[in-house]
Amino acid sequence: MNIPTTIERQHRCEMLQSIEESSAKQVDQHEMSTNPHVVIIGCGFAGLAAACTLAGKPVAVTIVDRTNHHLFQPLLYQVATAGLAAPAIAAPIRHILREARNITTLLAEVTSIDLARRKVCLDQDNVLEYDHLIVAAGACHSYFGHEEWASFAPGLKTLDDALEIRRRILLAFERAERETSPEARRAWLSFVVVGAGSTGVELAGTLAEIARETLRREFRHIDPMVARIILLEGSHRVLQSYPEDLSEKACKQLERLHVEIRTDSRVTGVDSDGISLGGERLPARTVVWAAGVRASPVGYYLGAEHDGDGRIRVQLDLSLSGHPEVFVVGDLANVESGGRPVPGVAPAAKQMGQHAARNLLRQMVGKPTRPFLYRDYGSLATIGRNAAVASLGRLRLWGKPAWLLWLCAHVYFLIGFRNRLVVMLDWAWAYWTSRRHARVVLGIGGK
Amino acid sequence: MNIPTTIERQHRCEMLQSIEESSAKQVDQHEMSTNPHVVIIGCGFAGLAAACTLAGKPVAVTIVDRTNHHLFQPLLYQVATAGLAAPAIAAPIRHILREARNITTLLAEVTSIDLARRKVCLDQDNVLEYDHLIVAAGACHSYFGHEEWASFAPGLKTLDDALEIRRRILLAFERAERETSPEARRAWLSFVVVGAGSTGVELAGTLAEIARETLRREFRHIDPMVARIILLEGSHRVLQSYPEDLSEKACKQLERLHVEIRTDSRVTGVDSDGISLGGERLPARTVVWAAGVRASPVGYYLGAEHDGDGRIRVQLDLSLSGHPEVFVVGDLANVESGGRPVPGVAPAAKQMGQHAARNLLRQMVGKPTRPFLYRDYGSLATIGRNAAVASLGRLRLWGKPAWLLWLCAHVYFLIGFRNRLVVMLDWAWAYWTSRRHARVVLGIGGK
Repeated sequence: MNIPTTIERQHRCEMLQSIEESSAKQVDQHEMSTNPHVVIIGCGFAGLAAACTLAGKPVAVTIVDRTNHHLFQPLLYQVATAGLAAPAIAAPIRHILREARNITTLLAEVTSIDLARRKVCLDQDNVLEYDHLIVAAGACHSYFGHEEWASFAPGLKTLDDALEIRRRILLAFERAERETSPEARRAWLSFVVVGAGSTGVELAGTLAEIARETLRREFRHIDPMVARIILLEGSHRVLQSYPEDLSEKACKQLERLHVEIRTDSRVTGVDSDGISLGGERLPARTVVWAAGVRASPVGYYLGAEHDGDGRIRVQLDLSLSGHPEVFVVGDLANVESGGRPVPGVAPAAKQMGQHAARNLLRQMVGKPTRPFLYRDYGSLATIGRNAAVASLGRLRLWGKPAWLLWLCAHVYFLIGFRNRLVVMLDWAWAYWTSRRHARVVLGIGGK
Repeated sequence: MNIPTTIERQHRCEMLQSIEESSAKQVDQHEMSTNPHVVIIGCGFAGLAAACTLAGKPVAVTIVDRTNHHLFQPLLYQVATAGLAAPAIAAPIRHILREARNITTLLAEVTSIDLARRKVCLDQDNVLEYDHLIVAAGACHSYFGHEEWASFAPGLKTLDDALEIRRRILLAFERAERETSPEARRAWLSFVVVGAGSTGVELAGTLAEIARETLRREFRHIDPMVARIILLEGSHRVLQSYPEDLSEKACKQLERLHVEIRTDSRVTGVDSDGISLGGERLPARTVVWAAGVRASPVGYYLGAEHDGDGRIRVQLDLSLSGHPEVFVVGDLANVESGGRPVPGVAPAAKQMGQHAARNLLRQMVGKPTRPFLYRDYGSLATIGRNAAVASLGRLRLWGKPAWLLWLCAHVYFLIGFRNRLVVMLDWAWAYWTSRRHARVVLGIGGK
């Protein structure tokens, strides 16, 4: 079976039958297309940017994702910490791309890629033939070879991850309220965040705010204020990708929220009762993993050269060596720009997606491709209310100014006008009341 | 172990130690309480109304629920049909009751009730001793003895149910887009709603709007407009609890949305491919159950006389025969008011909860209890945009006026100012754009 040919041909006939009901001209135009077929795998920042660049161009595009939504990952920690509802940061892919009549969206899982025959195999025995391929499958958690830790220390990459972490955090306080033994209660009120990159810092800061502000006065047998939030980092400082002085500022802001920061701490074991650091034992019923990522397994289907994290080493124009028709972008790509590795952040992914799509269009008209140049607009990480750090070239901000900048940037870049509005309202409400509205635990049965 | 005694005594000492950190006076007041202990099982409309009535009164209240949230069930179909996010209609129980210092909230599951010893057993071997008990455990789906249908035709009672139904509805369109066989595609585009009470009518109407408005122009291989929405009803008319002329109005409004209504249709089989009606077979990959309810199994723990649906037959004052200290309220209670059975609707549950709590307070001061009188303010059911029916005593409304009334009533009764605002905005947005913002499929894995 072959979707772009078999299905489309079949649909062509049937859809023309229902000519009265639908906009036949557009169906016609799309279905009869003899333009080159571009397959995009993944609709994160990179894949979506590629798709948007190809919208309306003389190509037939099929974008494949295993979820039905594009996720605004930088705010995922807000869903995990009950500040935002899941739909506030996710928009249906086919809705975003609805006006691009040359783009077809498929919810499917890629099971293999045949570079020689130019075929992408999907679940349910579907096959997509392509003329050009853009692989933007992203990254997942890495437990440094200890995959058995995954069930005790969930990572934060998808909405399902976020809801699972939310569930664990909220249930920990509930369980503590029912515990009689002080020791057991302390373990339920101890939260460990592993990894002090932006996600780890954001999670730890927000967790501290939940314990100290949101849940205050709501329990009768415990005092949520006594909860311990421990932030573990393997290197010698938090936010290692930031300038040193901002790491210190971040540290101070975290300490003001009573987050315990432990640098140079390497995790040697994780189980349901806590975490081991060499000889030391930290009892904690809730552990969140924000330590490492590795490239999506889809990368391995390419059979190409990859680095230790599974990221594909691509040419300077983002194409695969020996396969100019295949581009690899986003967190899956290991590429240098200006002699420095491009970081695995959303702006870089967007730029790569756009660049690959443009190179593809250049190839189609016989022009040479261009090397990718990463434009670094700076980094932002939030810690809590009025607490953040920002590094924008030589400009460095912290505290309230950084926080306001972070707020504006994140709301601005959210997909869809409505989501922006809702997120803004949610935050205004949270700011004035210290409440978090999405404190709903799912998946514990119901009446 | 015994929560109100053992835990509280232990906490008393420990909490007084952390006297600087928390509001000691209030802890003191609560923990030292020698007031009678009231246990409320369930925090739906009935349980919450009882708790609110007892707030600040000379009783120590423990409210137990197996979820952490009070759910505004009348809008659950909106979560199921991607119009609202889950947190928009759910508020954390302990947040609602945070100012009532005499009320303790526990997330726990009741495993048995010992009426003779006045004990409620919870999971994790916790036991609650009570002086008074209010059982408000509600209802769950009934498949009329065919529990094996449950996995093929989920019902709509909890947030988890709603998200499962949302998942099935949205994935059905996604699967149809990928199908090559016209027959298989038709089965994915056929949706059956079993039961044409308010929930069934609301689901069918909204499903029709999704197919005809929301998803228009978003697919390339299918036309969502051709989706069949079939509403099955065992009796001879839809909305049987409404006056006959309003049933007809509802029918007409549903037919305008191209919902196929089949009354006098009794389901004889449900499987993953469709539904059987006697000899007839309806191929449909998505079936939603809105046909019957039965009382929560918690009712059986009382060992009291119950009706065919498992509802407990209570005295006119809502107490259990032979146990004046036990009240049964809400969907779990079978009671008459003015010679007519009280219906299983939210306003009746609220009134019962309040009434039982008031009777309990009367008992405490030696006054006789009063019989429950149900005040029927009318019924409202919505069908779609500008389409609803309302029966308010002699006043009957339909179309836009009924819809506006329904809108105001439901937003007004939503718990919490913020939720009201968010729901209002969501609806305003949906009204003007025909979009549904919560189109997020969870639980299909991620990157």
